[in-house]
Amino acid sequence: MAVAGLDELRASIDNLDAALIRLLAERFKATQKVGLHKAKYKLPPTDSAREAYQIRRLRDMSSEAGLDPDFAEKFLNFLIKEVIRHHEAIARSQ
Amino acid sequence: MAVAGLDELRASIDNLDAALIRLLAERFKATQKVGLHKAKYKLPPTDSAREAYQIRRLRDMSSEAGLDPDFAEKFLNFLIKEVIRHHEAIARSQ
Repeated sequence: MAVAGLDELRASIDNLDAALIRLLAERFKATQKVGLHKAKYKLPPTDSAREAYQIRRLRDMSSEAGLDPDFAEKFLNFLIKEVIRHHEAIARSQ
Repeated sequence: MAVAGLDELRASIDNLDAALIRLLAERFKATQKVGLHKAKYKLPPTDSAREAYQIRRLRDMSSEAGLDPDFAEKFLNFLIKEVIRHHEAIARSQ
């Protein structure tokens, strides 16, 4: 009984992870294009107004969704760190 | 022209982030239940066989989706760290 309940929860987690991976792949496709775009038009790699907007928005959405807003902000920073790594690689390759 | 293209990409990123936040909220609801379940049946908080399965699966799915498998593994570790923090809080509260 204990294990059956656990298996069911884990199957849901696995489904959600599959969806998360697909969305992240799509998100990095978009940020990769942003990187190319910024390199092409010589725009600065970071944009603090945009980041402030994203943090505020994700925190608000998280509260509504029942997710810890501090975690959402950590998650965004985790993604941005990876995006900057990609943008630096684009800049180096050009 | 440069800015219009950027705005369109950012609108897509914002849509994807909204979906990611909703899925993460759902994922933590499931892992919260796993934590309660493990506490109730005195199961160990970590399960290395389960984690190894998740890493292998997410890496495979990432390759297929065009996402860096190393990033996918970092992402899973980022989530697991947060889940363990939640489980410890559940264990303390019981």
